[in-house]
Amino acid sequence: MHTLPPHFTAVPLDKSYRLLNHGPTVIVSARHAGEHNAMSAAWACALDFAPPKVTVVLDKATRTRALVEGSGFFALQLPTVPMAALTKAIGTDSAVTMPDKLRRHGVQLFDAPGLDIPLVEGCAAWLACRLITEPHNQQAYDLFIGEVVAAWADDRVFRDGHWQFGTAPAELRTLHYVAGGQFYAIGESVVV
Amino acid sequence: MHTLPPHFTAVPLDKSYRLLNHGPTVIVSARHAGEHNAMSAAWACALDFAPPKVTVVLDKATRTRALVEGSGFFALQLPTVPMAALTKAIGTDSAVTMPDKLRRHGVQLFDAPGLDIPLVEGCAAWLACRLITEPHNQQAYDLFIGEVVAAWADDRVFRDGHWQFGTAPAELRTLHYVAGGQFYAIGESVVV
Repeated sequence: MHTLPPHFTAVPLDKSYRLLNHGPTVIVSARHAGEHNAMSAAWACALDFAPPKVTVVLDKATRTRALVEGSGFFALQLPTVPMAALTKAIGTDSAVTMPDKLRRHGVQLFDAPGLDIPLVEGCAAWLACRLITEPHNQQAYDLFIGEVVAAWADDRVFRDGHWQFGTAPAELRTLHYVAGGQFYAIGESVVV
Repeated sequence: MHTLPPHFTAVPLDKSYRLLNHGPTVIVSARHAGEHNAMSAAWACALDFAPPKVTVVLDKATRTRALVEGSGFFALQLPTVPMAALTKAIGTDSAVTMPDKLRRHGVQLFDAPGLDIPLVEGCAAWLACRLITEPHNQQAYDLFIGEVVAAWADDRVFRDGHWQFGTAPAELRTLHYVAGGQFYAIGESVVV
């Protein structure tokens, strides 16, 4: 795996909910027994402040789900505008039928510091999570709960506990999926 | 309660997940035994396509949670940019300590057609939900699951199964909360 990307900066755990609060589409990644994978998911959400927790929906047909269940760890990361095509592609194609889907779609991975979790380059932020196993939720709803154990962001776009979309390069805006290959980028700040 | 607002148009249930997919902040509303309330929540998410389901996090300290548990129904609705101050206010003040918080913050309600659920005027979309009771999730995580039983949108901004933020009036853009009174409006379309 590659070295850490530039601008990769730790986010305090008590601020990590802010990385998901505005509702971005995420890429879910995991590694188990030497196998890694990553898939896109529009259905991820913060669940608690302290300790910080998240929810994410992982369909039974996905290979990434098996790696999450096997390892007990996963990461959520926030793809940026230039990654829209990659994000759609790895949410559509499955490693079950396309084993080289990450390579084919140009996904570059690096290792989360101190954790056996692969992270995706080019994202705006990353949350490393420990699975809180809840068999009923996982079976009945495909709903997974994780505790955030570490978080990082590109310090050009998230700094001092706040998003800096207004001043950061436009290509660092997060993506928010609708359907049919259409996303919206996050927009302008509204302060009350 | 008032009559239906102009532009209030039914959304087919199989498209209703698209109302939440881009991660907007919501207002949660409910009525039980003649009492109604509404509160803001950043932590709401789609959970399934068919039947459509949603998750929402409701703290034990909120009055709205008691009305959801009592009635078994709630609505999620998407406030728009001009509602940012209102959205922050009804997510900060509680009816427990400020019984007239809705009137004080200028919240105008109308009834969901055919359902005993109050809806908030001025929003971009509304999802009426039947609570799927899950005692462990509600107690351990403050996590509530609902099945969407009806959905509507302002047809200037959601039409033909898609958001129309690019052509609709700018004041109909949805809000995405960060923290400390700061939101982002949803931004520009990215199609791949």
